[in-house]
Amino acid sequence: MTSADPVHPAFVKGHGTENDFVLLPDPDGNLELTAELTRRLCDRRTGVGADGAIRVAKGQAGRFLMDYRNSDGSLAEMCGNGARVFARFLVDAGWSAPGRLEFETVGGVRTADLDRVGEVRIGMGPVKIGELSAAVVGGRQIPGRAVDVGNPHLVCLIDQDPAELDLRDPPGYDHTVFPTGVNIEFVRSLGPDAVTMRVYERGAGETRSCGTGTVAAAAVHLAAGDRDCGTVAVRVPGGVVSVRIDSRTADLTGPAVLVYSGTLNPAILQG
Amino acid sequence: MTSADPVHPAFVKGHGTENDFVLLPDPDGNLELTAELTRRLCDRRTGVGADGAIRVAKGQAGRFLMDYRNSDGSLAEMCGNGARVFARFLVDAGWSAPGRLEFETVGGVRTADLDRVGEVRIGMGPVKIGELSAAVVGGRQIPGRAVDVGNPHLVCLIDQDPAELDLRDPPGYDHTVFPTGVNIEFVRSLGPDAVTMRVYERGAGETRSCGTGTVAAAAVHLAAGDRDCGTVAVRVPGGVVSVRIDSRTADLTGPAVLVYSGTLNPAILQG
Repeated sequence: MTSADPVHPAFVKGHGTENDFVLLPDPDGNLELTAELTRRLCDRRTGVGADGAIRVAKGQAGRFLMDYRNSDGSLAEMCGNGARVFARFLVDAGWSAPGRLEFETVGGVRTADLDRVGEVRIGMGPVKIGELSAAVVGGRQIPGRAVDVGNPHLVCLIDQDPAELDLRDPPGYDHTVFPTGVNIEFVRSLGPDAVTMRVYERGAGETRSCGTGTVAAAAVHLAAGDRDCGTVAVRVPGGVVSVRIDSRTADLTGPAVLVYSGTLNPAILQG
Repeated sequence: MTSADPVHPAFVKGHGTENDFVLLPDPDGNLELTAELTRRLCDRRTGVGADGAIRVAKGQAGRFLMDYRNSDGSLAEMCGNGARVFARFLVDAGWSAPGRLEFETVGGVRTADLDRVGEVRIGMGPVKIGELSAAVVGGRQIPGRAVDVGNPHLVCLIDQDPAELDLRDPPGYDHTVFPTGVNIEFVRSLGPDAVTMRVYERGAGETRSCGTGTVAAAAVHLAAGDRDCGTVAVRVPGGVVSVRIDSRTADLTGPAVLVYSGTLNPAILQG
């Protein structure tokens, strides 16, 4: 490939608790991550395949920019699992030193803390618990609570193993409470400091993990025990993360794995 | 990477009518494509992601060997869509000249015909139409016909659009007729020389296409019109292929796309 290519086709594929991303390193700001390009890259058979695409670009004041889209091409405010993979790329590629780094998202400036190896902690910003609502699964109404983690969530605490729920069809929800759609978490307590959950994401369907969803789940779990701070281990189908919540903010700690790097056949982008 | 690596982590990803494959070029015969390695490579979130893996190795008499496994690690006799991608790789990489090439599979020597660009034709060997049987979908019995294309198929001719069938659960079949499992095709006629079909593959679930399945479908479609030779356009969810059947043998012509090349993080193979 030469620098004359309109789209630089080099990429890195990674995942955080099996929520997976195509990273497009764009140090010179030459690349436009359009909805169409994102859909092509994220197609699991004709493209690379991922839950979302992240353009890794330069932002303001020496910070890097996490330019993120969901696999359906829609913009998202923030993606906690994607942010871990993004930060791991920056350190592995030598673009950032290990330690604390700040980066920009559509939802504002966020922080990452990481060493040369190991887990990554992301500052997720404030969590706001909202009104009571409900999801509908297989005709059954399941009470839940609206939560704002920069994006909208509906957290349903349940007494059964979430693995038993049939989530092949999208759960119903109250469109007057969530006019722009909602991510829905089904959460079972495993004790005061641990939960297990499944998540159905708007624009993606059921996924193996959702970073903001684990934060929302931890906040509602703590609130159910009359706590507004604490640390909760959140088990998702793709692994385990740790969510720390205090009265002002939340952070999310978990794995980030870079699986391979690749070079696209340019015809794929033109096709 | 150096040649001292026990597993060379370079690969190529491609698809034929959206049936997708990880190709592992292995010119020196250093690589063992185990069931475990195949499962890791084919995992769509923690690996590369594919319906199957193909080691591209040297065979006998100047031929290349297509060493194929399904995504669950099981061995398969033949894979017509994978064979097209395999042949396209050989020509694109300069390992074979365009034109006719012979290659080895577990099911025997096969042929491919291709130019530098365009579709690939694969000689699929003989097709044997067998006994009457049936599939069960949603409690409903759907009559079908056993077909042997080197691997076992059950072809069910139906009067409805296959898109209307709910194939989220595996269809039932007669285990006495198919003791090692079966690939099941639901096929609707679109006229004398065209059909549309969906396929549920053993070891993989519903896929976007199955090469041997399109051959089985074409043979049963022709037989239903009292023909034992002819050419049938077979529409699958992932595209269209052309199947030519004569009294002795069958060939399959369709697209083969190389999407990207990549290098695995070696830790993935050790993890």
